Formats: sequence, C-alpha cells, structure tokens
Amino acid sequence: MFGNARLHAFRRRLHEVIFEADTPAGKTFDVALIITILASVGAVMLESIASFRAAHGAALRFAEWGFTLLFTLEYLLRLWTVGRPLRYATSFFGIVDLLAILPTYLSILLPGAQYFLVIRLLRVLRVFRVLKLAQYLIEADELRRALRASRRKIIVFLVAVLTLNVILGSLMYLVEGAENGFTSIPRSIYWSIVTLTTVGYGDISPRTNLGQALASFIMIIGYAIIAVPTGIVTAEMTWTRRRPVSTQVCPQCAAEGHDPDAVFCKRCGARL
Amino acid sequence: MFGNARLHAFRRRLHEVIFEADTPAGKTFDVALIITILASVGAVMLESIASFRAAHGAALRFAEWGFTLLFTLEYLLRLWTVGRPLRYATSFFGIVDLLAILPTYLSILLPGAQYFLVIRLLRVLRVFRVLKLAQYLIEADELRRALRASRRKIIVFLVAVLTLNVILGSLMYLVEGAENGFTSIPRSIYWSIVTLTTVGYGDISPRTNLGQALASFIMIIGYAIIAVPTGIVTAEMTWTRRRPVSTQVCPQCAAEGHDPDAVFCKRCGARL
Amino acid sequence: MFGNARLHAFRRRLHEVIFEADTPAGKTFDVALIITILASVGAVMLESIASFRAAHGAALRFAEWGFTLLFTLEYLLRLWTVGRPLRYATSFFGIVDLLAILPTYLSILLPGAQYFLVIRLLRVLRVFRVLKLAQYLIEADELRRALRASRRKIIVFLVAVLTLNVILGSLMYLVEGAENGFTSIPRSIYWSIVTLTTVGYGDISPRTNLGQALASFIMIIGYAIIAVPTGIVTAEMTWTRRRPVSTQVCPQCAAEGHDPDAVFCKRCGARL
Amino acid sequence: MFGNARLHAFRRRLHEVIFEADTPAGKTFDVALIITILASVGAVMLESIASFRAAHGAALRFAEWGFTLLFTLEYLLRLWTVGRPLRYATSFFGIVDLLAILPTYLSILLPGAQYFLVIRLLRVLRVFRVLKLAQYLIEADELRRALRASRRKIIVFLVAVLTLNVILGSLMYLVEGAENGFTSIPRSIYWSIVTLTTVGYGDISPRTNLGQALASFIMIIGYAIIAVPTGIVTAEMTWTRRRPVSTQVCPQCAAEGHDPDAVFCKRCGARL
Repeated sequence: MFGNARLHAFRRRLHEVIFEADTPAGKTFDVALIITILASVGAVMLESIASFRAAHGAALRFAEWGFTLLFTLEYLLRLWTVGRPLRYATSFFGIVDLLAILPTYLSILLPGAQYFLVIRLLRVLRVFRVLKLAQYLIEADELRRALRASRRKIIVFLVAVLTLNVILGSLMYLVEGAENGFTSIPRSIYWSIVTLTTVGYGDISPRTNLGQALASFIMIIGYAIIAVPTGIVTAEMTWTRRRPVSTQVCPQCAAEGHDPDAVFCKRCGARL
Repeated sequence: MFGNARLHAFRRRLHEVIFEADTPAGKTFDVALIITILASVGAVMLESIASFRAAHGAALRFAEWGFTLLFTLEYLLRLWTVGRPLRYATSFFGIVDLLAILPTYLSILLPGAQYFLVIRLLRVLRVFRVLKLAQYLIEADELRRALRASRRKIIVFLVAVLTLNVILGSLMYLVEGAENGFTSIPRSIYWSIVTLTTVGYGDISPRTNLGQALASFIMIIGYAIIAVPTGIVTAEMTWTRRRPVSTQVCPQCAAEGHDPDAVFCKRCGARL
Repeated sequence: MFGNARLHAFRRRLHEVIFEADTPAGKTFDVALIITILASVGAVMLESIASFRAAHGAALRFAEWGFTLLFTLEYLLRLWTVGRPLRYATSFFGIVDLLAILPTYLSILLPGAQYFLVIRLLRVLRVFRVLKLAQYLIEADELRRALRASRRKIIVFLVAVLTLNVILGSLMYLVEGAENGFTSIPRSIYWSIVTLTTVGYGDISPRTNLGQALASFIMIIGYAIIAVPTGIVTAEMTWTRRRPVSTQVCPQCAAEGHDPDAVFCKRCGARL
Repeated sequence: MFGNARLHAFRRRLHEVIFEADTPAGKTFDVALIITILASVGAVMLESIASFRAAHGAALRFAEWGFTLLFTLEYLLRLWTVGRPLRYATSFFGIVDLLAILPTYLSILLPGAQYFLVIRLLRVLRVFRVLKLAQYLIEADELRRALRASRRKIIVFLVAVLTLNVILGSLMYLVEGAENGFTSIPRSIYWSIVTLTTVGYGDISPRTNLGQALASFIMIIGYAIIAVPTGIVTAEMTWTRRRPVSTQVCPQCAAEGHDPDAVFCKRCGARL
C-alpha cells in the first residue's frame, strides 16, 4: 500500500500536527485537544456528584471510555511520530499523557480510580506553549527561577517549622488533653499546623484558659513565621528583577555597569 | 421660548456643573451627588434587613423610586450636555451610571433585582476626581500600574493554583469521601481553595487520619504559595519606586533613560 | 510654712522625679508606675471573669479605687509641676493619663464603665521612653515613617476594598439568601470581609453550589488583594532602608553618591 | 588493664566517632543516631493515640526505656570524651541532649511527662551539620541573620500589637458580653488575637450587629498590620542580598567596604 517514503512523510506531517502549533492544522489540533481535555475533566467532576451520577451514570461512563480511547490513540500516535519515543515517554508531559489514560483502565479493577483522571488537567498547561504565549512563558520561567533559587532557604524554613509544629502540638496535647479534642499528638500537630498557617478551621480549638493563652502565643509567633517565606520569595524576585546591567567593559576606560542597550561608554564616550 | 444661543449657553453651563468640579456650583453638585448616592445605598442595605423591611417597607420603596428618578434625570442630562454622548455612554463611569438606575426598573419584573442598586457605590469612586485629591489619584495610579505590570505573572500563578486546587480537591475526595463532608469533587475543590487561601471556614474539614495528614501537607505547601503573589506585587512596587534614571535627554539623538552619573550618551556617544 | 523659694524647689524636684528618668529617683518612680499600671490592668481583667468576681468582687473594687485615687493624685501632680499645664493636658499622653482615671468615676453612674480602664495600658508605652531604649525608639520611628509614607496608598486601597466588599456581599445575599445565614446585606458584607481578609470564622459560610463557586472566586481574588498592602509597606521599608548615600559633592570633580563616612572622593581622591 | 595511653587513644577515637562526621565511622554513627531519634519520637507519638496505647502499651513503654538508656549512655560518653565537659553541657545541643532523656525518668514520678520526649526532635537539627550540608547552613545562617537584624523592629511591633489586642478585646467584651461567648476580657483578647492574625477559628464570633461591625473594622485594620512583619523581614532580606560592596582593601589604610567602582580609598584618598 503506502510506500516507505509516503509513510515517512505522513509520519512527519502527523508529528507537525500533534507536536507543533505553527501550522493552521497544528493549532486546530491543539485547541481541539484542550477543549476535549476540559470536557473530560468536567465529566469526571460531574460523575462525583451523587445526584448527577444516579441520573446520568451510564452516559458519563460511556463518555469517559470515549475520551480515554481517544487519548490512548493520541498517546500511541505521539509515541510513533516522535523521533526518540523513550525520551518523550520519560519527559514530564510524556508521563502526564500516560497518567491521563491509565485510571480508566485501572477503574475496572479498582472502582473509584477513575477520579484520578483529573490529572488530565496538567495537560492543559500546554496551553501556554501551544498558543505561543511567549511572554507568559517568560514570566512563568521567572517565577520558577525565583522559587528554585530560594529552594534551599525554603527547605531550611520548612524543616524548622515542622519541628516547631511537633513540639507545639505535643505541648498542647499535654495542656488540653483528649477531652477537649486534642485526642493524640499527631492530631495536636495537625491543629498546630492549622493554626500556624492561619487557616484556623475551628474543628479543634483550645478550651482551657492555659490552652487559649498558649494558642495566643503560638499565633503571635505565627505572625513572624508567615513573614519568612514571603520575605524569601520577594527578596529573590526583587533580586532577579534588578540585573539589567551588561557585563560589558569599556575598552578605553574600563568602566563597567553599562545598560544592556548601551552602545557607547557612559563615562568616556568610547564605542563599546 | 429659549433662543438657540441661550439654550446652548445653558447646556454648557449645565455641563460645567455636572461634569466639572472647578466652579463652586460644580463642587456643590458633586458633593450633593455623593451624599445622595451614599443615602440610596444605605436605603438598599436597610431594605435587606427583614425586620426593618417589615416596619418601613413602603417608605423605603418610595425613597428608592425617588432616588432612581433623580439619577435617571441626571443620566439624561449627562447624555444631553456631554459633547460625544456615545463615548460617555460606553465609558466606565457611563456604564456604571446606567447600571445604577436599571435595577429599580427591573425590580418590577424581577423582585429582588433592586439589591443590585449597590453598584451605585462605584459612582462614589468619583470622589477622588471630584475633590481634586490629586495626590491620591497618583498613588492609585501607581498601584494600578504595579498590578498591571504584574498582570501576566499573576495569571500564570492563578492558572497554576487552580490546577493544583483541582488535583488536591480530587485527592481529598478520594481520601475522605462523601461521609466526611467531601460530597463531590467540586465541593472538595471548594474546600481546597478555602484551605490554600488560609480562609479556613471549617464548614468542611478532614476527619480521617490520612485526610488530616494530607491537609497538613497542603497547608504547608500553601505557605510557599501565598508568598508568591506577595512577592510578585512587592517586587513590582519596589521596582517602580526605584527609578534612579536621569531625566536628561541626549541633545544629539534624543535618547532617554541615562544613568544619573552618565557623562556621555549611551546610544550615540555625544556629550550630555 | 514653706517659703516660696522652697516650694518652687520642691516643685522642680517633683517634676524631675515624675517626668524625667535620668535621676535614680526618677527611674525608680517610672518603674514603680509601670508595675502599678500593669497591676491595675490585671485587676480589671480579673474582675471581668465571672467566677473571680463572685469570689473577690469587693477586694477588686477596693483595689480599683485605690489605683484610681493614686493615678488621680499623680495626674494632679503632673498638672501642677509641669511648666505649661494646658499643653500637657492636650498632648497624647496627657489625654491618656486622664482617660486612665475617668472610667472608675463614671462607673458610679454607668456600671460596666470600669472596663474602659484597660486604656491604662497605653501608659505603658512610656516604657520605651522611660528606660531610654533609644535604639527601639529609632526602630519604632522607622516603622511609623514607613506607615505614614504609605498612608495615601493604604487609604486608596481600603476605599477600593470596602467598595468591593459591599458589592460582593450584596451579590452573595442574592445568591445565598436569608435561609443560608446571609440574612441581610450588612451581614453579607461582614461575611465578605471575613472571607477577603482570610479570617474565615465559618459562622456564616455558603451552602449552595453557586454560592460556593462565587466564594471560591472571591477567595482567589483575595490572594491578589492581600498582596497589595504587604507590597506597599515592604516597598516603603526597602526604600527607607536604601538611603545611606551622602549628599556631599566632590569639590574637585563634582562626583556624587559618596558613602556617609567617606572622607576622600572615590573618583578623583580629592578631600571632600 | 588498659594503659593510660591506650585509654587516651580510645577516648580520642570515640570523640571522633561521636562528635565528628568526617570519618566513615563517624558518619555511620550520626546517621544511626538520627534514625534512632526519629524512631523514638515516632514511638512517643504512637503512645499518645489511645487505641494504640491500649493494644501495644507495654511494648511502647519497653521501647521508650530502651531508647532512653541508649541516649543516656551516649550522653555520658559525650561528657567523657569531650575536652571541656561543662562547656558542652551548657551549650544549646548539650542542654537538648539532657532534656531528651530526662522526661522518661521524670515519668516515674509524673505520669505523662514522657510526652516531653518529642524535644528529642531538636537533636535532628544536627542533620544539617552531620551531613555537611554546608550550603544549607549558609542559607539557614542568612535567615537567622535577617531575623536577628529585624529583632528590635519585631519587638516594637509585637508590643504595639499586644496593646492593641488588649484594648480591642476589652471593647468587644463590652459590646458582645458574656451571653455571646465573650465571657471575660482575657477570653475576648484571645478572640482578638485569633482575628487579627487571620486564624479565625470561629469558636467565638460576634453575633450582635455592632459587634460584627466592630469586628469588620478590626479585620480591615488587620490587613495593614499583617503587612508590617512581612515588610520588616523582606526589607531586611532584600538588604542582606544587596551587597554591591567591593572586596578591595585599601593598600594604605586597610579600609574595607569600597564601592565596586571606587578608584581611590574613601578614607585616606590613596589609589586602590
């Protein structure tokens, strides 16, 4: 049937449509894909609503299998058309693409597994790449860089906060005790985290005078603590923003600190 | 009756009174308008209190229609006196002015629509313009500029946070289940948003051990997450404030944005 | 009895003891005063606890009158010894000193007025002045300056937030209605403020699906909103900190931007 | 038996194993120690869960005594091998090491004291030192420096916030009263702290109209207040990061801290 060359051309054409968004066909494919993903996630959400499941359960299961077969076909085509299949399969989006179809198959053995299908939503993050939202990508990258740069400080902070929570939680367990809802140390640590992060559900709250005094103290401490991650990230971002200085050195007077768009030395006027 | 010229002069005079705040009459009109707006919003609020509505319902409805007829007259006068009526009608304040009178008329058909009258409050934002609070306007502008500059970063952040909320909410739905209040995925997403934003109503809260452990993990993550928008806005504001750029313009090439200590133009090398 | 000169000397001596903290007697007086204030505030707090009031009510009332007579005497002595009594009486601490004794006398006519005595606590703020905690005063001043400098931005922000709260609250009143706890627009505005500030008591929380969706939207918006005041204050503080540059100009080469401790020009080496 | 020299060598060898992490034996010891600590803290937590204690109480008590004897032996060895025992015993980790064994012995007299054993977790903070996570140590140090530098500002802030809380709490006690849950001034202060820190349990919440209005006002104020510690820490961190100081030392007067673009020493005018 197909000659080898024609098959090759077809595969390359398919690759363009599936992986790129430069051609009209590629763009149409990507937009259609996003709509399909959002629809399938919507179906999973609707299925979780008991009254809706009772009324339209069969239709939802049918749609779910339809979406999954579609995404399975797409995954296989991606594997076939891509140059290095293994590399794609182990990349972030390759794994997400696989996880986006597995739960439906798993739900045959494990009822309820289909709810993991919401992971499909991660595929929508491609929207930024697909629609060539270049400026958004740069901003996302800037955010990611700031977070990665403050990675170590945040880990040190989290270890310190967790240790603090364990100790404060144990203290409250001793002060309040099981009769006031602090039934065990792990549950008291849960309360301590709820309090220090200022979430404050109120499902467990101190009732003795000493407990309320200690809790007040913890909350006041929490003030200073919540300031720390904000400080870390902000300092990093301010820092990242403040680097529009060229590394160019004036060949005549060796002055540094020129703007990136400078053509002449700002000190001596020599051409850079 | 009126000659054309006198009508024209009257219209211009009216325009000055209604739209400007330079003349004593214009200022008096604007202050009176603001008081009327606040009074009408107060009346709407009072009407929503059941006991008050039972006692003074007729008087409130009467006042409401009075305010609305007054604002309708004012809206028509604005349309008549302004140079380009369509432009005014489609401007921000033009739309607000219209929305501020529609609900009363709508309430004949749709009982309850009159509560939308609180949108009248947006008209009070004119207070900044009216009272010539120039410095406040500049500060408001600075805030708006910082928020607009960080627009894209905030959108990237919100898309990421929403995706995270959907996935975390679904996970909690699986862990806790309908018997602990997580009755569906949309409701679990609602819980997840309530938790990550550190609002923490406590109307839904995890009860199983695994659920509380997962919630603790989510809250700790929320620490880092809440730091991000603060970091974005702060970095932008610090950046806006830091403007050590000279106002000098190159006499040769008219380039701007030189450093305060620059001696030569960084574009063309001419002496500044 | 006393000669006029001796009375004058006694008055000056008393002034030193009461108003200054340089002499040992003055320091002793101030420390004793602070202890008395803290004790009297403690007594007011204890009186508010029903079980304690039942057991020791008479003793507490006695102590209260004792403290009040003591502070009244002190207030009169301050008025007598100070050079310009009216100026002292209308100063911040003069008013606080008066407010710190009035409630007890008022409580004869108005039972319960004595709880206003906690305002005495403001007198303790003198501790910073008294104990010559100069460095703390400078830091407090830096904080106050940063807050005052961002005053206008914060007012613009608060007006915008209040308008937003009124509109969001009214919307939720329409969506949820009285049967879900949103009994009136003012109460819905209270809920809106509780949500946007991320306090989240949970005494009122949305129960309908549309209400929870709207609330989620409000909370996500609250993310960006809570970042704004932090951004304002932080930018102001970073800005305040970054000014260690001398205004000195080199007399030889007119270079600017020297460190405050520079003695020689960093560009040409000339003595500044 | 042992010659004095051999004993000395053994002691030095033991010191290396226990205190250092350079040799394979030292590293193995430290990793084993961390695992043991985590296991013992886990046992304490499990003991606090009533159902678990009922089933495995004896085994847990046995494990606890085992861990404590082990840690006691280790503490004694540390005292013996270290050069200056008193200095170690009074150092931060020396005290933590002692506190990590005392509660078990105390629990003979005071049942429940064993829960203080969670303080053992502080020993795990050694993990940073042990595993030579040098970069983490630097980051931790940077955090600590930023917090210490803003120490005074934070204390001023906390004193101001506590005073505010006492006054606001007393006001709410008068407005709401005991019948709405504000049973005493200390409890109202607890509510005020819960609100201003945006924790918001909802165990106590205002019910009267005036109380809800006042609470709304307090929360709006809380907006500005929560921005302050964040601003303090962030400004400090941004400041720490911004170190555009040259490492050049003046060859004449050894002055440091020159600007990166300095040509002459700012102290003595010598060419750098």
